[in-house]
Amino acid sequence: MLDFIILMAQNGVSNMDVLSVDQFDIKQLEKIFSLAESIERRLKDKKAAKELAQKHFDKQICTLFYEPSTRTRLSFETAGLKLGMGVVSTENAAGFSSAAKGETLEDTINVLNNYGLSAIIIRHTETGAAGKAASVSKVPIINAGDGTGEHPTQALLDAYTIKKHFGRLDNLKVVAGGDLKYGRTIRSLCRLLALYPGNHVSFVSTPELQMADDIKQLLQKSGTTYDETDDVNKVFADTDVVYWTRLQKERLENPGSIDSGGFTLTADNISKLPKEAIILHPLPRVDEIDPEVDKDPRAKYFEQAGNGLYIRMALLDQIASS
Amino acid sequence: MLDFIILMAQNGVSNMDVLSVDQFDIKQLEKIFSLAESIERRLKDKKAAKELAQKHFDKQICTLFYEPSTRTRLSFETAGLKLGMGVVSTENAAGFSSAAKGETLEDTINVLNNYGLSAIIIRHTETGAAGKAASVSKVPIINAGDGTGEHPTQALLDAYTIKKHFGRLDNLKVVAGGDLKYGRTIRSLCRLLALYPGNHVSFVSTPELQMADDIKQLLQKSGTTYDETDDVNKVFADTDVVYWTRLQKERLENPGSIDSGGFTLTADNISKLPKEAIILHPLPRVDEIDPEVDKDPRAKYFEQAGNGLYIRMALLDQIASS
Amino acid sequence: MLDFIILMAQNGVSNMDVLSVDQFDIKQLEKIFSLAESIERRLKDKKAAKELAQKHFDKQICTLFYEPSTRTRLSFETAGLKLGMGVVSTENAAGFSSAAKGETLEDTINVLNNYGLSAIIIRHTETGAAGKAASVSKVPIINAGDGTGEHPTQALLDAYTIKKHFGRLDNLKVVAGGDLKYGRTIRSLCRLLALYPGNHVSFVSTPELQMADDIKQLLQKSGTTYDETDDVNKVFADTDVVYWTRLQKERLENPGSIDSGGFTLTADNISKLPKEAIILHPLPRVDEIDPEVDKDPRAKYFEQAGNGLYIRMALLDQIASS
Repeated sequence: MLDFIILMAQNGVSNMDVLSVDQFDIKQLEKIFSLAESIERRLKDKKAAKELAQKHFDKQICTLFYEPSTRTRLSFETAGLKLGMGVVSTENAAGFSSAAKGETLEDTINVLNNYGLSAIIIRHTETGAAGKAASVSKVPIINAGDGTGEHPTQALLDAYTIKKHFGRLDNLKVVAGGDLKYGRTIRSLCRLLALYPGNHVSFVSTPELQMADDIKQLLQKSGTTYDETDDVNKVFADTDVVYWTRLQKERLENPGSIDSGGFTLTADNISKLPKEAIILHPLPRVDEIDPEVDKDPRAKYFEQAGNGLYIRMALLDQIASS
Repeated sequence: MLDFIILMAQNGVSNMDVLSVDQFDIKQLEKIFSLAESIERRLKDKKAAKELAQKHFDKQICTLFYEPSTRTRLSFETAGLKLGMGVVSTENAAGFSSAAKGETLEDTINVLNNYGLSAIIIRHTETGAAGKAASVSKVPIINAGDGTGEHPTQALLDAYTIKKHFGRLDNLKVVAGGDLKYGRTIRSLCRLLALYPGNHVSFVSTPELQMADDIKQLLQKSGTTYDETDDVNKVFADTDVVYWTRLQKERLENPGSIDSGGFTLTADNISKLPKEAIILHPLPRVDEIDPEVDKDPRAKYFEQAGNGLYIRMALLDQIASS
Repeated sequence: MLDFIILMAQNGVSNMDVLSVDQFDIKQLEKIFSLAESIERRLKDKKAAKELAQKHFDKQICTLFYEPSTRTRLSFETAGLKLGMGVVSTENAAGFSSAAKGETLEDTINVLNNYGLSAIIIRHTETGAAGKAASVSKVPIINAGDGTGEHPTQALLDAYTIKKHFGRLDNLKVVAGGDLKYGRTIRSLCRLLALYPGNHVSFVSTPELQMADDIKQLLQKSGTTYDETDDVNKVFADTDVVYWTRLQKERLENPGSIDSGGFTLTADNISKLPKEAIILHPLPRVDEIDPEVDKDPRAKYFEQAGNGLYIRMALLDQIASS
C-alpha cells in the first residue's frame, strides 16, 4: 500500500502531498484506481461501508478554501466523513480569515500544522499556492485547484471514469472540446493520457481557444498523436471519449467576443458518436451541453462527478493509513 | 414505520421527499409526531441518546442553503449529528458555488446525487425550488424553505408544539396574528389545522396584511371556521393558541408604510389570555413581542424552536432507516 | 475534576462559562493546565487518542461566530472533534443569520439553548457580548473573543505555553511588545501574570500605543513590577519571555500615522536574547517578526498556536463531563 507514497517521494514530492498530475507514474495511477475501485465496491456493501465509516474516526482533515468551490469541497468532505474522519472547513479563507489581516499562506499552514490534522485540502486563486503550502507543511497537502494551475484529483477522477468504462487508459481516441486554452482539466487529462501508449487526441475549439503549445509538445514527445479541428462532425464518428468543457468566461478578458454557439453538444451532433463512446464534462455545465443529452446512456458526466468521491476517499485513506 | 412513506408516495410525492405540508394526511402527521415524541423522550435518557447518536454513523446528509437561515440550518445539522450522521454544508450556495458560474439547480442536484448522501436539505430563494430539486433527485429532498413557498418542517414543529401542549390538534381556538399575507408559517399552519375537525382561526392583522383568499377558501371547504379582526382584545379572552408573527419587512415593497405598533404583544394585552393558552412565534422576533412576555409561562416560542430538533430527527431517522 | 467549576461558580460566573481570564484563580489555572497537559500526552498515544475521539460522541457544540476568525474557529472545532463531539458552525452569524432580520443575541442564544448542545462558543464584535449571551444561557458559553474585550482561551494558551517551557508562571521576566494599547492578548496575559508572585513585565512600544493605566494599576496592586521603554535592546538581554504583537491597524483611526518599523523582531535584535528565552506571538503575524526568526529554536509562536488545541480540549472535556 505504501508503494505509491514511496514513488511520490522519488518524484520529488515530499510526504504524501497530492499537488500535480505530474507526480504520478502509471504504477501509482493504477494503484490509486484500484484502491478507488475497491472503495467503490465496499461502499455498495452495507457491512463494508460501515467498516469504512469507522476506519479513521480518530482523524481530522481541513478543507481550506480561499476560493469557493462548493462541489469540490463537499466531495472531499463527504469522502472524509465516509472514512469516519472529522472535518473542519472554511469556504472563504481569503475574505474571512487572518489572511485578510495580512497573514501569509505559509504562516496559516504552519499554524494548522499544529492542530493535529491528517491532511489539509487547499483551494486557492493563485497558481502554485498548493506547492507553496506543501513546502512548509509536515501535514500532507492535497491540491483542490490552484488558479490556472492544477486540480489533480479532477484529473484522476476523469481518468478513473475512462478506465472504469473501457478497462484501459491506452489506445483510446479522445475528443477534447471547448475551451482548451484556459481549461485546466483538459490540460491535466492530456498529461495523464500521454503516460499511456497509443492514445490519440482531437482538439476541437475556436482558433482563439486552441490548446497551448506546451501540451502539444508533451503529447508529441510521448508519442501521443493529435489533430486540431473546429468541426465536431469530422471527429465524432470515430471517438471513444468526448471530453467537453465550459467556456470559462470568468477567465477571459473580453467574454463577449466569443461565440460558443457552435460548440454546444446536442442530441443531433452526438448522434454521430459510436454506441460505446462516453461523454465527459468536468462540470459545472452552462449551455455547452444541451440538457436533452443527459438522457443519452453515453452521457457520463454526473457519474464522473460521483467518481471523485472514490478517488478522494482512496487518497485520504492512503494518507491516513500511513 | 414505513407507513408514512407509503402514504407520501400515494399523495404523489415520490420517494421520501418532504416538500410541502400538503403531502401529509392526519395518519402521517400522527406518525411523525409520535416518532418525534419518542425521540424527544430518548434524548432525555442518556443510554437511549447514545444509541441514537450511533444509529446512522455511516450516513451523510447535506444542507444546501442558497439563502442563509442559520437557525434552520443549525437545527437540521444538530438533528443529523444526534442521529450519528455526518453533515456537509454550504451556507451560501448561491454566491459561492458553481451556481455563480451558471449551473442549474437540477445539475447541482444531479451531481450531489452521486455523492452517496442520504438526504439533501435545501433552502432556496425561489418558490418551487425544492420541488424542482426533487423532480430530478433520487436522494430524498427536504424543503427547508423555498421563497414565499413552503417550509414544511416549520409547520410540523408548530403543530407538534400545539399537540404536545393540548394533546390534540382538533377543536382549538387559534389566533393568528401579524403579517398574514406574507407569513409563510401561518399559511402552512392553517393548512394543517384544516385537516382536523372543529378548529377555529381568528385572523388579526392590518387590512394591508390580511390572510389571502386561497387559505380562507381552504378553511371553508374543510369546515374550519374563521373570523377577521384588527383588535387583539376582542379575541384573546377565548383563545387556546396565539400564533404571532414578525412583520417581514424584507418582503414588503414599502416597509415604512406599515405601523406594526398596534401588533406588539405586551404583558398588558396577553393578560387577557386564558391561563392554559400558549403563545407561539416562528422567530426571529423583532419588536412584535415585548421581551417581558418571555417570562410568562404561556410563552412557548423558544421551546417551539427546540421542537424543530425532534421533528427533524424524526424525518431524518425515517429517511435513513428506509 | 469539578473543583474548577465550583470555583468558577464562586467567582460569580454561573454554570461552566468561560468568559474572562478574571474568573480564574491560580488553583483553577493549574487544574486547566494539568488537564491540557494530560490531553496533550494522550493525543500522542494512539490508543489513548482513540479513546478521547470516542469520549463525547453523543455531544454537540456550536461555534457561533459573528466575526470571522478562522484560526480560532478551526482550533475549537478540531478540539471538539478530537473529543468525539459533533460540531455545528457558522462563520458569519452577523451577515447571514436572523441577526440580519433584527434578532437580539439573547434570542439567538435562547433558541440555541433548545437544540441540545453541550457548549456554545461565541465570537462577537461587541465587547461584553459573551457575558450578555451567558446571562441568558443555560448551556455553557465560551468566549472566543468579544471586540476589544476578552479572549480568555488565547490568554490560557499563552500562559500554558510559558508554563510548559519554564515549568512555572512565577518569577519570570516578560517583555511585552508592539501594540500594547489595543492588544487584547497582552492585557489578558498581564492579568494572569499578576496572579503569580515575582513576575516583572517590560512594556516596549511607541508612546502612542503604551499600555493603559488599568493594567499598570492591576500589576502594581498585585506586586508585579514593570517598566516601560521604546528600545528593545535595553531589555532583551535579561528576558525569559518575549511576547510580541501585531499592530492591529484595523483598530486604529489613522493607521498611517504609526511606524512599526522599529518594532520588527529580526535575527539581529533577537541575538541579544538569552538562550533559554522564548518568543511568543498571538498570530497572525504581518511584518513585526521577520520570517528568518522562525527558524530560531526560541521562536515558539506556531507551537503556541497549537497549544490552543489542548487548552480548548481541556475546557470542552470538563464542560461535557460535568
